[in-house]
Amino acid sequence: MSLKTGHEYIASIEALELEANILGVKSADLTRHPLVKPSLQAVATTFDCAHSEENRPLFRVRSSLTGEEINRFNHLHQSTADLTSKVIMQRTCGNLTGCCFQRCVGMDAANATFSVTYECDRTHGTHYHQRFIDYWKRVQREDLVVDGAMTDPKGDRGKRPKEQADLDLYLRVVERKSEGVVVRGAKFHQTGLLNSHEVMVMPTVNLGPGEEDWAICFALPTNTPGLRFIYGRQASDTRKLEGSTLDVGNPTFGGQEVMLVFDDVFVPYERIFMNGELDQTGKLVERFAAYHRQSYGGCKVGVGDVLIGATALIARMNGVANASHVKDKIVEMIHLNETLFACGIACSAQGHPTPAGNYEVDRLLANVCKLNVTRFPYELARLATDIAGGLLGTMPSAQDLEDPVAGPYIKKYLAAAQGVDTVDRMKVLRLIENMVAGAGAVAYLIESMHGAGSPMAQRIMIARQSNLEGKIELARQLLGIH
Amino acid sequence: MSLKTGHEYIASIEALELEANILGVKSADLTRHPLVKPSLQAVATTFDCAHSEENRPLFRVRSSLTGEEINRFNHLHQSTADLTSKVIMQRTCGNLTGCCFQRCVGMDAANATFSVTYECDRTHGTHYHQRFIDYWKRVQREDLVVDGAMTDPKGDRGKRPKEQADLDLYLRVVERKSEGVVVRGAKFHQTGLLNSHEVMVMPTVNLGPGEEDWAICFALPTNTPGLRFIYGRQASDTRKLEGSTLDVGNPTFGGQEVMLVFDDVFVPYERIFMNGELDQTGKLVERFAAYHRQSYGGCKVGVGDVLIGATALIARMNGVANASHVKDKIVEMIHLNETLFACGIACSAQGHPTPAGNYEVDRLLANVCKLNVTRFPYELARLATDIAGGLLGTMPSAQDLEDPVAGPYIKKYLAAAQGVDTVDRMKVLRLIENMVAGAGAVAYLIESMHGAGSPMAQRIMIARQSNLEGKIELARQLLGIH
Amino acid sequence: MSLKTGHEYIASIEALELEANILGVKSADLTRHPLVKPSLQAVATTFDCAHSEENRPLFRVRSSLTGEEINRFNHLHQSTADLTSKVIMQRTCGNLTGCCFQRCVGMDAANATFSVTYECDRTHGTHYHQRFIDYWKRVQREDLVVDGAMTDPKGDRGKRPKEQADLDLYLRVVERKSEGVVVRGAKFHQTGLLNSHEVMVMPTVNLGPGEEDWAICFALPTNTPGLRFIYGRQASDTRKLEGSTLDVGNPTFGGQEVMLVFDDVFVPYERIFMNGELDQTGKLVERFAAYHRQSYGGCKVGVGDVLIGATALIARMNGVANASHVKDKIVEMIHLNETLFACGIACSAQGHPTPAGNYEVDRLLANVCKLNVTRFPYELARLATDIAGGLLGTMPSAQDLEDPVAGPYIKKYLAAAQGVDTVDRMKVLRLIENMVAGAGAVAYLIESMHGAGSPMAQRIMIARQSNLEGKIELARQLLGIH
Amino acid sequence: MSLKTGHEYIASIEALELEANILGVKSADLTRHPLVKPSLQAVATTFDCAHSEENRPLFRVRSSLTGEEINRFNHLHQSTADLTSKVIMQRTCGNLTGCCFQRCVGMDAANATFSVTYECDRTHGTHYHQRFIDYWKRVQREDLVVDGAMTDPKGDRGKRPKEQADLDLYLRVVERKSEGVVVRGAKFHQTGLLNSHEVMVMPTVNLGPGEEDWAICFALPTNTPGLRFIYGRQASDTRKLEGSTLDVGNPTFGGQEVMLVFDDVFVPYERIFMNGELDQTGKLVERFAAYHRQSYGGCKVGVGDVLIGATALIARMNGVANASHVKDKIVEMIHLNETLFACGIACSAQGHPTPAGNYEVDRLLANVCKLNVTRFPYELARLATDIAGGLLGTMPSAQDLEDPVAGPYIKKYLAAAQGVDTVDRMKVLRLIENMVAGAGAVAYLIESMHGAGSPMAQRIMIARQSNLEGKIELARQLLGIH
Repeated sequence: MSLKTGHEYIASIEALELEANILGVKSADLTRHPLVKPSLQAVATTFDCAHSEENRPLFRVRSSLTGEEINRFNHLHQSTADLTSKVIMQRTCGNLTGCCFQRCVGMDAANATFSVTYECDRTHGTHYHQRFIDYWKRVQREDLVVDGAMTDPKGDRGKRPKEQADLDLYLRVVERKSEGVVVRGAKFHQTGLLNSHEVMVMPTVNLGPGEEDWAICFALPTNTPGLRFIYGRQASDTRKLEGSTLDVGNPTFGGQEVMLVFDDVFVPYERIFMNGELDQTGKLVERFAAYHRQSYGGCKVGVGDVLIGATALIARMNGVANASHVKDKIVEMIHLNETLFACGIACSAQGHPTPAGNYEVDRLLANVCKLNVTRFPYELARLATDIAGGLLGTMPSAQDLEDPVAGPYIKKYLAAAQGVDTVDRMKVLRLIENMVAGAGAVAYLIESMHGAGSPMAQRIMIARQSNLEGKIELARQLLGIH
Repeated sequence: MSLKTGHEYIASIEALELEANILGVKSADLTRHPLVKPSLQAVATTFDCAHSEENRPLFRVRSSLTGEEINRFNHLHQSTADLTSKVIMQRTCGNLTGCCFQRCVGMDAANATFSVTYECDRTHGTHYHQRFIDYWKRVQREDLVVDGAMTDPKGDRGKRPKEQADLDLYLRVVERKSEGVVVRGAKFHQTGLLNSHEVMVMPTVNLGPGEEDWAICFALPTNTPGLRFIYGRQASDTRKLEGSTLDVGNPTFGGQEVMLVFDDVFVPYERIFMNGELDQTGKLVERFAAYHRQSYGGCKVGVGDVLIGATALIARMNGVANASHVKDKIVEMIHLNETLFACGIACSAQGHPTPAGNYEVDRLLANVCKLNVTRFPYELARLATDIAGGLLGTMPSAQDLEDPVAGPYIKKYLAAAQGVDTVDRMKVLRLIENMVAGAGAVAYLIESMHGAGSPMAQRIMIARQSNLEGKIELARQLLGIH
Repeated sequence: MSLKTGHEYIASIEALELEANILGVKSADLTRHPLVKPSLQAVATTFDCAHSEENRPLFRVRSSLTGEEINRFNHLHQSTADLTSKVIMQRTCGNLTGCCFQRCVGMDAANATFSVTYECDRTHGTHYHQRFIDYWKRVQREDLVVDGAMTDPKGDRGKRPKEQADLDLYLRVVERKSEGVVVRGAKFHQTGLLNSHEVMVMPTVNLGPGEEDWAICFALPTNTPGLRFIYGRQASDTRKLEGSTLDVGNPTFGGQEVMLVFDDVFVPYERIFMNGELDQTGKLVERFAAYHRQSYGGCKVGVGDVLIGATALIARMNGVANASHVKDKIVEMIHLNETLFACGIACSAQGHPTPAGNYEVDRLLANVCKLNVTRFPYELARLATDIAGGLLGTMPSAQDLEDPVAGPYIKKYLAAAQGVDTVDRMKVLRLIENMVAGAGAVAYLIESMHGAGSPMAQRIMIARQSNLEGKIELARQLLGIH
Repeated sequence: MSLKTGHEYIASIEALELEANILGVKSADLTRHPLVKPSLQAVATTFDCAHSEENRPLFRVRSSLTGEEINRFNHLHQSTADLTSKVIMQRTCGNLTGCCFQRCVGMDAANATFSVTYECDRTHGTHYHQRFIDYWKRVQREDLVVDGAMTDPKGDRGKRPKEQADLDLYLRVVERKSEGVVVRGAKFHQTGLLNSHEVMVMPTVNLGPGEEDWAICFALPTNTPGLRFIYGRQASDTRKLEGSTLDVGNPTFGGQEVMLVFDDVFVPYERIFMNGELDQTGKLVERFAAYHRQSYGGCKVGVGDVLIGATALIARMNGVANASHVKDKIVEMIHLNETLFACGIACSAQGHPTPAGNYEVDRLLANVCKLNVTRFPYELARLATDIAGGLLGTMPSAQDLEDPVAGPYIKKYLAAAQGVDTVDRMKVLRLIENMVAGAGAVAYLIESMHGAGSPMAQRIMIARQSNLEGKIELARQLLGIH
């Protein structure tokens, strides 16, 4: 079966006939919905790249399961070179879309599930691994987009799943049947969910005795009955409804966040990859998290490249590209962005094989990578704001630009360095606004903070992985003390 | 004449019958316009405070010009205590509105103009000072709001006003008549302009020979013929048009930014306070800037207090208020916010009288204050985002909350610590979103960067004011070298 | 009685005939000891300034106790202007010495004890306040230097005083006699102790029931029998013994740290200002700490000025003073240094009278001040190192400069910009080395971190003083929630 | 020929009979000199590791020139795995010595010279490459330590080599003979020079027409007549002469910096690898710098591990290891240290083959690595100082610990958590002092700033390597503008 083009991909999503609550309206025909379409186009880029001459070698890889050529987004990594290629592919997608392209979560969930099911089977005598392989072969062959769903609502953060006033605040099995189980609950922050064919569900924390019902991992088609989708708001989202792309900033691409409700949904056994094996839960969470923290060393770097480019461009348009302080700030932006990239590359290059045979990243460095991602994009955004100037917050609307009275004033007074088209300048300003204080900031800033786990989660993992006792021993040996 | 209440103030603005281009529509009846009204209400707070029991002593002061009791926002500072009270008043307004309350610029422009006109008269034998006093007495007596307009479009930043391809890119005199002059040009980033009775115009840079036509300072009523107003966009601005305050975040107050065009506007001589005196231009710019950089040590601190409070509140609602890392981050937010306040207080306490008799801030410390403001609010916003969680970027809309199907899901799954109302929790999250990535971020972040001059402007002033040669001399003396 | 000159001061210290353990040698004649002398000279500066034409007005003030003119270092602050003058005086001393001048601790201890004894008497019916006044009058009249001793050894930081394995790890009363008490213990980090006439001892933590014996505050002459002094090491301290000032860096001035042991020392009642009043202990600690944290907003700023000056001078000597990145880094140094100053000024200007009548600083802002001091000097040192160059760590010794073979090579190859004397250049480099990685770094970096309490102590105070509930209430009011 | 042990290495250095000016004394028998010996022992570690069971596989590698097993420090990297192993080997050495082990420079110089001589020959028809291969085969076979000498004195930094008042301020050819050339000049900051068998000299800047005499690259034995060595001072260096290791901090190992003078030294042609080929100079500088900037991502990380371990150990000894703020600071130290490591790994993993066949690092990422090294160790040092406490700057001397009177007081009052030996605690404090403000800080801080080029050098390279135009093009494409 051949790899889909972006166009074919969109048609396949259309065929799912998904419906969602968007801004209070029950909406169908989502692939044409102006709020949804930019996010769909961003995902489509991951398909088109597998067909473009330039990117094809990077985006295509031979499947370890089938031997067929597949899209790397559905690959089970077979080497540190694969892990590295993943990061570079993500940077490329960020470069082309300037936003979140949404297809990483499924790849990261699959790689984690692949190795955890293998280990689970060895410990518990279960048969999840082959079941997962069968499932994933189909995903690879049909070139599907899989959403990875981990984050539960969590209710009172000071309490465990089984202690919550409403037990559904962590997704759980509410009924066990002969052919499968019924689950209830919700998953938050589902990036790109409505652009996905499948959703793969994992627990969100390490679970303990008495929490077997929450220890469930499975995959379902997104058009399974009982799934409810409620669209998340983003800053300035409704600019996409205004009919002009100028004020949207990023004219073609965007992100998508969805709240997903499981209203007593049936899951057949052949779709279940964990079911009550408590000792596997923490492992699955950590392993998925590590892959996903690596991802941010690629995708956010790619978006950062666009922000740096836009910032350098507006500096040139404003006539200040050669001011030493401007050059210095742009070097700083590059330095920080490349530091993130270095972390993404390093945790890949230092990866290792799992018992199941696929490759895992170096977990310490992956967490270090993500912790930097919770900081540096904020500084890049601050520096971009510095260079772009106050118009980021005060520029008149695209509609006013079209107004016969106001429009000419805007064109006259927003002129900058000679030879620069004023509307082009406004486009660049709106692109930067999109990324530092608009819809794009949701992915570039808020998701950089919380996606793949909040900073404290990374700090805990860093503490665990760092072999502090070994370092203490180094000091002792140097001093000859015990 | 008595001080206006907020209600009387709004009526007085309504009476001006201003019109503006807003999102492509020529709009009148602005005081009822949902985009404008929150900003008007923020200004009204500065009036109501002069009538509230708690704040009256701070907001009222005796005029040095008339001996009458006036609103401190129209005061010419008579002591370092006055300068300090100004900062505390601004912090109070930030506390009450959680946004920019827009009335500082006129106060800062007046104090700068008062002393510069005095010195100009002594140097040039002009008579601007008395003219300004007469003008300002009326402002004080009628309790008016005055917008201060400084920032020209600037075109190619690498060129001087007289070198621009379009000479209007800096506002200038295009005709000189017997009763006054005609000006053409524009002023950008006019905070609160449509909520002002008057606009006071100043040059934006130090001017040199051949640039006499740009060396103009004057004041006009905002309803003067020939003034054109084009409303600036802010992130998520149209949420104010959606009919629910929940998604707006700040339910009552907001900011306002306007692009102001002077379409060959006549200015009578009695309204002119500088007209070609080149050597006074840089002084006026620097002095106004210093006052306005001081202001940020009050207003942004006040808004920061609200952000800190909202962050501590969401932590409590989420059940994590006692987590050590949460407490530590909140302490850091307080520390940074109080450092800004310390700078605002310090430049006030170290102020000095001008030859004209009013007090000026310590210019070095005022610039230090503002340079910190270009940094710390970004870190506060980052920390608030950290603590608030990913819902900042993914929470469903207020309309979905009202939806009979989606609403109950949202209420069920957004529940957090016991006893917390879910909708209250959503309100707090939307307030934080407003400040870190919504309409409020325009004032709290972008304006913190560029208002009263971009960071490079502060660095240049710090270099100039720091007596570096004196410091070199200290090192030399210590070492006994020459 | 007239104010001492530096010369008279040194004679008065000599008359105390103190002895100390210094580098393993029991040493007398300390005022001539090459390790001690630079520190003595730094203290002497505080006396000489009261006689110099330029600084006399700042350093002299009329005593609130006697009406006589005293050195401001012995003043009980009577206004916010006094608090501000204190900070400016400290900056001046830092400017003149480039190091710690050691006389602040006693001033800060006295101001805290003055108000706490007043309140203690009102609560407990004791008579400490008048006793302290009598004592302090003599200090003022005789123009004495008083060391303030607070920091106990603390043993296991996880345990309270009464829980320590060795109860002496916090200084305590071991015997109570008719005429006074006997104390045992130690005080660490005693800055300038051997240059002091008196030592004033305070508890180091808030004490509770069962810890009455530790709740002791008193003053003694430094030559009281039973006091043992052990000199603290500083980086590169023995360069002072090498006979050339070049490698010392700061040729004239330096700091001093002493470990003080109380070997069952008798304290007569007339020298005791607290004796078992547990509820006064935390107050005394906090109040002293607040004054001392303010101090750092003056003294470290003064030293920072010298470091900035030396850095600008070496840049000029190296021929790079006009490189934009060098200018930018120096502006950053100034900015950070002035931010510290702003905090020192702000907590002074926002001070308030105590019930006893002297003025206390704003405690929140004083803690904010010190917390910044634990950060910014490190960044100044880093930037100074950046500009000064690698010779900071590799330059040959002063002895080699004198060597007939090596000396000419050093002079030939260390030449830099034309017209610069090579030895002068070496002096500037050694001065910077002194401050960033030599003996001066003890005061400029390590003491900036830990003096007047470690950063965590400031964070705890900031949390306590910040009225977080009030900020939460601001958010609630804005949102109309409860 | 077998690889030397540390012992054999020391004997081989002893056989060179080098002499140096040290603190004004012409000194021979350097391998026994207490100032020199610790640095020699640090280098010896690189030999011993090739014989230890644990490290042998990492430190030994097969030579690409001879096929024999050699020490990796003399290897020409044949793959990205080799580049990565280099970084891990350096981290290991840092772990074992806690200081600079001095053997990296020659390795980095050799790898740069290997590829540049190859390219030079192709361009200029010269025969340097085979000559260098012959030379380096001997280095590999004899397991020699080679110092890499690049940094010229530079005189007036605002002037080029040929414009200096004294032309010798950059090392140059002063005479050309039939068998070779005579050079004059100096090289600064020569780390480990007196522990090296050979010194390899390179130009320090890109040279242009008229500067052919400065375009010289060659290698000489360190005992060549005419070489003069002047020992550099380090903070607290003379503690090594005091006879006790306690106050030294690092009891066994240390660093070494030497000023090297070429007093008209003859260099035979077979030792010359560049001689006037101007277009190769910049390339050699950049390539060497890139390798050496990579190195810092290993060696400083290894030293950082020791600092982290010592800091965690002192926290435990003080009884505060479980305080949340202490744990948080240690996690931050680890995070920063691993970020440096990630950069070191990333520039290795992204390396590429040169035309000559050995591997070069990714130059952009190597510069990013080093720029982070100019920042993070300072923050680690600051955090270590925070946790270690004020005793870092005030602890009495080792001699006082031995004193019969003072010693017992010190032991009594420096006791901390139960079960901790007081002298062990002092050792840990002195080790930390060594690294943050003592002799070790020369390598860990000052060299981190300036070694392999000052920060501005990295920023210039980052600007050059970052393809900013490509990033601008990304923004243009996204916006559809030209």
